[in-house]
Amino acid sequence: MEVENRFITIKASIDGFPQLSDFEVKTETLSLSFGVGNKQVVLVKNLYVSIDPYQLNRMKSQSSSQTVLSFASPIIPGEAIDTYGVGRVVESDKPDFQKGDLVVGLLSWGEYTIVKEGTILNKLDPMGLPLPHHVGTLGVSGLTAYGGFFEVCKPKKGETVFVSAASGSVGCLVGQYAKLFGCYVVGCAGSQKKVDFLKEELGFDDAFNYKEETDLKSALKRYFPGGIDIYFDNVGGEMLEAAVANMNTFGRVAVCGVISEYTGNGKRAAPNMLDVLYKSITIQGFLVRNYMKLYTDFFSTTMEHLQTGKMKAPTDISWGLESVPSAFIGLFLGDNVGKKIVQIADE
Amino acid sequence: MEVENRFITIKASIDGFPQLSDFEVKTETLSLSFGVGNKQVVLVKNLYVSIDPYQLNRMKSQSSSQTVLSFASPIIPGEAIDTYGVGRVVESDKPDFQKGDLVVGLLSWGEYTIVKEGTILNKLDPMGLPLPHHVGTLGVSGLTAYGGFFEVCKPKKGETVFVSAASGSVGCLVGQYAKLFGCYVVGCAGSQKKVDFLKEELGFDDAFNYKEETDLKSALKRYFPGGIDIYFDNVGGEMLEAAVANMNTFGRVAVCGVISEYTGNGKRAAPNMLDVLYKSITIQGFLVRNYMKLYTDFFSTTMEHLQTGKMKAPTDISWGLESVPSAFIGLFLGDNVGKKIVQIADE
Repeated sequence: MEVENRFITIKASIDGFPQLSDFEVKTETLSLSFGVGNKQVVLVKNLYVSIDPYQLNRMKSQSSSQTVLSFASPIIPGEAIDTYGVGRVVESDKPDFQKGDLVVGLLSWGEYTIVKEGTILNKLDPMGLPLPHHVGTLGVSGLTAYGGFFEVCKPKKGETVFVSAASGSVGCLVGQYAKLFGCYVVGCAGSQKKVDFLKEELGFDDAFNYKEETDLKSALKRYFPGGIDIYFDNVGGEMLEAAVANMNTFGRVAVCGVISEYTGNGKRAAPNMLDVLYKSITIQGFLVRNYMKLYTDFFSTTMEHLQTGKMKAPTDISWGLESVPSAFIGLFLGDNVGKKIVQIADE
Repeated sequence: MEVENRFITIKASIDGFPQLSDFEVKTETLSLSFGVGNKQVVLVKNLYVSIDPYQLNRMKSQSSSQTVLSFASPIIPGEAIDTYGVGRVVESDKPDFQKGDLVVGLLSWGEYTIVKEGTILNKLDPMGLPLPHHVGTLGVSGLTAYGGFFEVCKPKKGETVFVSAASGSVGCLVGQYAKLFGCYVVGCAGSQKKVDFLKEELGFDDAFNYKEETDLKSALKRYFPGGIDIYFDNVGGEMLEAAVANMNTFGRVAVCGVISEYTGNGKRAAPNMLDVLYKSITIQGFLVRNYMKLYTDFFSTTMEHLQTGKMKAPTDISWGLESVPSAFIGLFLGDNVGKKIVQIADE
């Protein structure tokens, strides 16, 4: 079977702030190979795909960011861009998958994906939850939040937790895990609407709009008069400096994202190493792939929280393949509240 | 019994690079109190006292460095300055200590110290080693190196280790522990003489003079073509940035000192958080007091290494109370090779 696949690609490497003109829609014909030695497993029709800031690092040119490119596989201009998502099997060369099966795994910013051997793909039982929940909260964003909070931050009940980009895909889950665990949680975000959302919808103890603060160090002192035990960092830059200045002894910083520096126009963080030294602070970067072993535990815990209504799965969904570039650019403008997802086709 | 005590003090807080004129010798009369409820334990004649860079942070004014002062007890102008050292008991109010006993613990930059209850002080059996060994290598510098390397850096055999200020009191021990443990060790220092010392006397695999390098990042790339697994950081600043750029995945940085920033004229480190994120790097500050539980293990291990000649205890000794200020200032000029100690009196 042959399908016409329309997919999003970049025209060239992107080193600054992404623009709509950096992207284009291309068309290709896809057909699944069959037979012995075949490395192609299934042809999937994509339903919901994940939109994540880290993709920008994969779009950078070799010269601008050697380190990142050596650790994150680069996106090649003109080629399809892989991403986590939910889809439905159109055709399969393997008995594990049947036509019509719902699947979740590494798909692409396109209408169809041919998934190859060795790529993450699992049959999906939605268990009564909406399909987008399986893209974000029960997917990579969720595991990132879960692994980062429990393994990197090593929380104790009653500790104070600060989350930046708290209304983002990972931040809004970290805050909820922390509250359920028994921590005092404050988040920051970039608008009053988001601040209200964090406090009223997600149960954060407090939240503030960082754009209205002239001195982030003083702001954090105000929200954490007794100091910060855990900082879950999604942004880097000045907020990291301010958090380190307000950390308590044996404080932990989980570096999950550095979005203020992805577009190349942010000031690079220079946290005071005298604070790090005298307060025995740990700053630890991590990637979700470090915590795949937690997947089963993460999934059952989170599923239960969602089913019992203890946790919410905020999602921000746009419609149609063509909206992928603007949805992606919107991440860097702070447009989204919760997990950004694009719905590619009707369920 | 009364003694005339000459001691070193600061005239006022010191916020920049320390000068000889910042210090003065003062004289006081000391006599031990006796009896029930007495908090004074012994009067000690100081023999060897430790000279350490961190003291400068305790000399800063409240305004310049609130954080540091809230964690390190400030040095009050006009008062005696406590420091680790070896001395001999002159008079005692407690049965544990007798006149003539050698002791090691928290003494002062003076000719005599009245040691109070609750202060670290132990009877000293030199076990055939020179007394200065007990001030540095078997004292606070040694435990700092041991705890920092084994607990913070969590080394594995065969890993690559970079040590800055490698000929300093802590660095020269970290390098030796790392070699004995089975790591590949490169140190940096500020002169050819020190570089030769590291390679020829202490058995470092390699060493370089950072002052002769125009690009620290490239220099580290040259010395660690396969990347750095562990960076034991005594200096902060640009060297920290260069090390982070050269770290391997799951690399660990132990922040033991930030000497390039103590005098207020160094550039503050801005390690690339994209490296920290994508390479899952951990940057951890620590203080020796976090690792007091390791003392027995540290002492027996290090004593054995010294007695069997597997480890050396480089010491750099000046003579006389009056030399304390210049010895201290010399730390920031890179004058010392090994542990800086001032001998106050004949043994």
